Amino acid sequence: MIQITKRVDFSASHRLYNPDWDFDKNEEVFDKCNNPNGHGHNYILEVTIKGNPDPETGYVYDLKKLKLLLKEKVVSKLDHKHLNKDVDFLQGIIPTVENIAVMIWRILEPEITNGKLYKIKLNETPDSWVEYYGEDIEINRFG
Amino acid sequence: MIQITKRVDFSASHRLYNPDWDFDKNEEVFDKCNNPNGHGHNYILEVTIKGNPDPETGYVYDLKKLKLLLKEKVVSKLDHKHLNKDVDFLQGIIPTVENIAVMIWRILEPEITNGKLYKIKLNETPDSWVEYYGEDIEINRFG
Amino acid sequence: MIQITKRVDFSASHRLYNPDWDFDKNEEVFDKCNNPNGHGHNYILEVTIKGNPDPETGYVYDLKKLKLLLKEKVVSKLDHKHLNKDVDFLQGIIPTVENIAVMIWRILEPEITNGKLYKIKLNETPDSWVEYYGEDIEINRFG
Amino acid sequence: MIQITKRVDFSASHRLYNPDWDFDKNEEVFDKCNNPNGHGHNYILEVTIKGNPDPETGYVYDLKKLKLLLKEKVVSKLDHKHLNKDVDFLQGIIPTVENIAVMIWRILEPEITNGKLYKIKLNETPDSWVEYYGEDIEINRFG
Amino acid sequence: MIQITKRVDFSASHRLYNPDWDFDKNEEVFDKCNNPNGHGHNYILEVTIKGNPDPETGYVYDLKKLKLLLKEKVVSKLDHKHLNKDVDFLQGIIPTVENIAVMIWRILEPEITNGKLYKIKLNETPDSWVEYYGEDIEINRFG
Amino acid sequence: MIQITKRVDFSASHRLYNPDWDFDKNEEVFDKCNNPNGHGHNYILEVTIKGNPDPETGYVYDLKKLKLLLKEKVVSKLDHKHLNKDVDFLQGIIPTVENIAVMIWRILEPEITNGKLYKIKLNETPDSWVEYYGEDIEINRFG
Repeated sequence: MIQITKRVDFSASHRLYNPDWDFDKNEEVFDKCNNPNGHGHNYILEVTIKGNPDPETGYVYDLKKLKLLLKEKVVSKLDHKHLNKDVDFLQGIIPTVENIAVMIWRILEPEITNGKLYKIKLNETPDSWVEYYGEDIEINRFG
Repeated sequence: MIQITKRVDFSASHRLYNPDWDFDKNEEVFDKCNNPNGHGHNYILEVTIKGNPDPETGYVYDLKKLKLLLKEKVVSKLDHKHLNKDVDFLQGIIPTVENIAVMIWRILEPEITNGKLYKIKLNETPDSWVEYYGEDIEINRFG
Repeated sequence: MIQITKRVDFSASHRLYNPDWDFDKNEEVFDKCNNPNGHGHNYILEVTIKGNPDPETGYVYDLKKLKLLLKEKVVSKLDHKHLNKDVDFLQGIIPTVENIAVMIWRILEPEITNGKLYKIKLNETPDSWVEYYGEDIEINRFG
Repeated sequence: MIQITKRVDFSASHRLYNPDWDFDKNEEVFDKCNNPNGHGHNYILEVTIKGNPDPETGYVYDLKKLKLLLKEKVVSKLDHKHLNKDVDFLQGIIPTVENIAVMIWRILEPEITNGKLYKIKLNETPDSWVEYYGEDIEINRFG
Repeated sequence: MIQITKRVDFSASHRLYNPDWDFDKNEEVFDKCNNPNGHGHNYILEVTIKGNPDPETGYVYDLKKLKLLLKEKVVSKLDHKHLNKDVDFLQGIIPTVENIAVMIWRILEPEITNGKLYKIKLNETPDSWVEYYGEDIEINRFG
Repeated sequence: MIQITKRVDFSASHRLYNPDWDFDKNEEVFDKCNNPNGHGHNYILEVTIKGNPDPETGYVYDLKKLKLLLKEKVVSKLDHKHLNKDVDFLQGIIPTVENIAVMIWRILEPEITNGKLYKIKLNETPDSWVEYYGEDIEINRFG
């Protein structure tokens, strides 16, 4: 078993707030991330697949095909978008880096049929990121 | 003469469009950057000062003080903001990376009294940036 | 379960030597790291916490609070210090990157009450680092 | 148990093709990687060893010695070479990043006697890499 | 005047040798770069254009268009190629990083009509690069 | 004319203080950099040479030879040293990043006989650096 990873990026904006809370409570919890006009990041997404190399090709997964898959299923949906407003699969979800990573997993997992999706790593800044391995997680969809 | 540089970063959102144009013209020119809900970036700002080291300290400029100045005058104004809506000195200006860099120069230039402000470098993404040395440039303020 | 990581850095000096050995033995084992006047590094510290996102916030851990915690408990104690001489929790310990990482774990582990401390990664240079997951390890305290 | 990692790099060329297939089949599968004249990369190799720090030194593994070992056993064999033609331990093997990583493991594993070889990470580009932990894998040797 | 830069990359192989010299002389001068089977690199190309921002758009040059231009005129010609054998504009030229940069300038300079081409930076490795500003340079074309 | 650059690094410790001042004055000016036990950095040095490529080789300067020169004349003198105490050419000089860069210039300038030394860039941290082009600068040597 080998892990193979492709890195892609996208630029998006978001606002962190819980629609069940008033502004003051959101300000207290989310602070500057609660700016009503939003703010943004260059996200870096690393997608890892685990499997055995095909003896005929030496490939666990063709990275050119993985890049195309990531562009079609993830980057084209998130790049240059407002994550609270423009993305169908994030509707009603607080777009923390944790929640975005989990939702990207759910989009990609059924698409990976050679080998298995093993890890999603998502950077919000060069100094802040999450890693997710597909454990069951409850995500609130508000509204 | 030595150049000394401090790097800081901020996360912001923006939308690129010319308010004198209709949506189709903006879409044609600015494409995905014209998304009405905006998108965002982790901007990286590098500020370079040129001068002679003080023989008593060996400093051209105390980098701890430069970092504080950048935080007070630039980062606190731009970080976690929507550049079209939340920033006084960008009101009415199309917030391209070119225009933001010029406006940061105009904020910082009068503040640098030891040595002289020499260069502003501003990255919008790791693969796209501008460098500005203070030449006269006309920037349109719309509306 | 998701892992969330914050990266911070500090600049410090140290000398590697075993006080129970003579200079020649230390020179043989630690080589240039045994320079009696010390040398230094820009250390990069990555702290990973594992937990479930809070359904009300989408946060495993508020990264702004984690950054403040790291600054208070670790960075303020190590930054611009001599690790053999200036740091209470490293007194008598050979400050290898392995030992520093273990001691940072012991400082941070009781402080993390939302989720659990999962990993400490510590870079001594861009090309050399350790990763520590909290296993029991015996560390000698000399003198 | 702590993991300690050393990073080194080498520059090499290769061609990806299966000698049992005709040119059209290779072109379909390997695409631009099948260019008969080859192409190349700056590979980045990260070698991780797992063990307990020696109480006398605080070292899991002396990184200066690990660097020398990597230079002697791996870098000197691969740097500025054509991986299909110039490397004894890759003869007849399709030099995908997966297969190169596995073969580097097999070279290094018997050499690590303090602690145990834990992971090989090999980047082909900054955006593409594999991680290998020594599981049993069958690699075809053609011709 | 502002400088705006786009970064792209390509992976290629090459061999450094002077066809007018015998093998021993080439070995003495080019050493491991003279390996007859070639070796390779992930090249990083940064292209800088200098000009005034258009008051209607705030753009010196539309970076999306610059990226497309670089892909069409440079990257598609060099990526996954052998620079001595597969590239028309490098035929007979020793493909040092200096010479490749100059030839890329000659390809791009007539294509830049908004603003002017100002600088080509080309990395052969993360630790080795050239910068070229378009001065007259004589490049030998052998054979 | 082309500029060619080699990057190397070294790890060192230092203390910033003016021996003509008392401790309080040094503390006021140099703050945490005045820690009497010193602190340290991983310095990154980039050395740029300007010249015309030799038509016989395509080289402005052989980067393998430049790397050897930098190791002999600079890195071996500074790596794993205390810059105030262990380095002959820094004796009595306040080892700010500005002053170190100027002194490295003075060491290297007479050694570069193919082409001319054009620039020294020296990073003290990833976010702080100087660039020096050889202008006349007075540096105090104390004591």
